[in-house]
Amino acid sequence: MNIDKLYENVKNKGHVCIGLDTCIDYVPPLERNKAPSDSGAVLSFNKSVIDATYDIAACYKVQIAYYEEMGVSGLSAYSNTLKYIKDKGCLVIADIKRSDIADTAFRYAKAHYSGDFEADFVTLNPYLGMDSLEPWINFARNSGGKGAFVLMRTSNPGMKDFEYLEVSKSPPGENRLYNEIGKRMSELSKEYKGSSGYGMFGVVVGCTEKDEAANIRKTYPDLFFLIPGYGAQGGGAKEAALLLQNGSGGVVNASRSIITAWQKQNLNEKADNTFAAAAAREAAVKMRDEIRMAI
Amino acid sequence: MNIDKLYENVKNKGHVCIGLDTCIDYVPPLERNKAPSDSGAVLSFNKSVIDATYDIAACYKVQIAYYEEMGVSGLSAYSNTLKYIKDKGCLVIADIKRSDIADTAFRYAKAHYSGDFEADFVTLNPYLGMDSLEPWINFARNSGGKGAFVLMRTSNPGMKDFEYLEVSKSPPGENRLYNEIGKRMSELSKEYKGSSGYGMFGVVVGCTEKDEAANIRKTYPDLFFLIPGYGAQGGGAKEAALLLQNGSGGVVNASRSIITAWQKQNLNEKADNTFAAAAAREAAVKMRDEIRMAI
Repeated sequence: MNIDKLYENVKNKGHVCIGLDTCIDYVPPLERNKAPSDSGAVLSFNKSVIDATYDIAACYKVQIAYYEEMGVSGLSAYSNTLKYIKDKGCLVIADIKRSDIADTAFRYAKAHYSGDFEADFVTLNPYLGMDSLEPWINFARNSGGKGAFVLMRTSNPGMKDFEYLEVSKSPPGENRLYNEIGKRMSELSKEYKGSSGYGMFGVVVGCTEKDEAANIRKTYPDLFFLIPGYGAQGGGAKEAALLLQNGSGGVVNASRSIITAWQKQNLNEKADNTFAAAAAREAAVKMRDEIRMAI
Repeated sequence: MNIDKLYENVKNKGHVCIGLDTCIDYVPPLERNKAPSDSGAVLSFNKSVIDATYDIAACYKVQIAYYEEMGVSGLSAYSNTLKYIKDKGCLVIADIKRSDIADTAFRYAKAHYSGDFEADFVTLNPYLGMDSLEPWINFARNSGGKGAFVLMRTSNPGMKDFEYLEVSKSPPGENRLYNEIGKRMSELSKEYKGSSGYGMFGVVVGCTEKDEAANIRKTYPDLFFLIPGYGAQGGGAKEAALLLQNGSGGVVNASRSIITAWQKQNLNEKADNTFAAAAAREAAVKMRDEIRMAI
């Protein structure tokens, strides 16, 4: 199962998930100008960052929105980025947050668990209900243990609009909508569990609400967490560490703070991909070490 | 605003939204065999259906999952399907159910409101909160009134898992999660309203729960509905009619029951796209008339 591979990667390489949310503005101007197209420039940039970081990244997360923005050629760059990560022997999370039902959900599963867009993990939005996850679960079981992270409590301020609503079904104190999703995913994990002890499908839990973190970790010991909100979104190593356990238990994603680290060095005109990739490695190593220190 | 154009289309052409959820199995074998690729076969099939129905369709809904399934070339067929609908002067809803936050949501908005994948309307999943919709709202306002349908109460059995949960914030009887989303969209519609009286962004309400339909229609008079669940999913003209008002108020989507109508005629080996398109037209006209009768 991919969740076991990810568990091992975290033990060996640290908790950093490098987010390749690469928009064209993140590519050094020097490289942009010589590239035949925006999507070509983004792909070359991604390859440089992957080359410089694959030994220290637990996994990569590729945010498909940045590639959809560039249209058909952008999705070709997305596909080639996934393949490049795979060729390096690394794991990749396709951050797609897809949600649909029945046959349509099956089509999405086929799209992102095989073919041009094949990834090791995907992110899914559970609003439509557990039957919207079923085609993914079935596909995952039949394809050697593909994985997913289901949105539970995200890292944006607006998550309080719906995810935080108290639902009357649950006991007070644990009755927010996101808990309901956590409970259902926890039940699922008992049925489909890897040798690491973690369920085949994990959940997304942002590291932006420090007060709840320890309680969430304790409530769902068998769920592996994909943890956004680090860096640009305000979460730090201490907040993230509260969502980890026993040297594993989750990966912490950072995107902009890693892939745009080169912009901080005031070398905008001279910087190339090699320089940007070295800055990304430095930022990722620093983050890895900060999290290790905070645990 | 696109919502006003859709309102007028419904008045003039009826309530039918034709769903182009075209997987390769829906294309007649005769055409499949002679096409250079699956995505090419799907695009030709779509064009035939559009040619045969654009005068009686209020709009089209293209489900992107069926195209993502075919990878990069599938998304090229998706792009060309959208363009073909536009060239015919018709409106198209991109059924993408995207959900993300902040800059990522902006990238999605740019992806589906402009460029290769430009559509008149999109479908959105609101689980992450109202700030996940903001980039879409801003983009829509700055681009001549693009539209969206936000998932409220969907048509699948699993919608009872979360959409139906009672939230303690609202008064009893109106306190399901989906009502909370309806209320927020209703507030939004007061701010961004077309000359038709409908908000710039509508909601998705399935026609599979007959008991609630009249109440939902009455509670949200200023929201335009995208209504799935007709035909293959079990809803009928009577259920759909309860969600409409004053000769407009919503479009009723049917996909499989229209685009696979040709398969019912036992001519599998001889059927071509022209035959399939004629059968699609017949099914769409029948549906349009059944809904008109039921109102």
